[in-house]
Amino acid sequence: MDADESIVMAGRVSALADPVRLRILSILAGSDDGEVCACDFVEPLGRSQPTVSHHLRVLAEAGFVEGDKRGRWVWYRLRDDSVADLARDLVTVATGGR
Amino acid sequence: MDADESIVMAGRVSALADPVRLRILSILAGSDDGEVCACDFVEPLGRSQPTVSHHLRVLAEAGFVEGDKRGRWVWYRLRDDSVADLARDLVTVATGGR
Repeated sequence: MDADESIVMAGRVSALADPVRLRILSILAGSDDGEVCACDFVEPLGRSQPTVSHHLRVLAEAGFVEGDKRGRWVWYRLRDDSVADLARDLVTVATGGR
Repeated sequence: MDADESIVMAGRVSALADPVRLRILSILAGSDDGEVCACDFVEPLGRSQPTVSHHLRVLAEAGFVEGDKRGRWVWYRLRDDSVADLARDLVTVATGGR
């Protein structure tokens, strides 16, 4: 694994290296139709809207969630396989495949 | 996923959210007999010994590597399944299992 690859992968891992962001993934994964409004994370996470929006932005920029703006609010969903792909890549590194 | 679980998991993920530490995993996984002396990471990583030792300590405290002190130096190896376990746990979170 060269330095550039490690920097890219560390960026992806960093997006998940936060308890609030992990809980966001959990909430999204447990939602009925896979979509949750940005406004609906505030109460379960116990964080302000700006904080929630920051974390959603970090996850979106790293490719783990995607947002769909509807009127005033943005609805988020998990990007299929995004976490599984990172999980697989981590195992590849740790088994000598990269 | 409750707040406490998310804090614990984020701590594990954080240990891998660093390019040097990912490269350490890669070097360990690619070594002939699975063991690498702490002194042998300096050249491939292009970092000082204190920096390398810091990163190895972070990985050890998070359970990803274990060190065996032999004389002056510590030899490190990957802890079996440690990365795979985290990978599996991340997928569990992202598929609604936690």
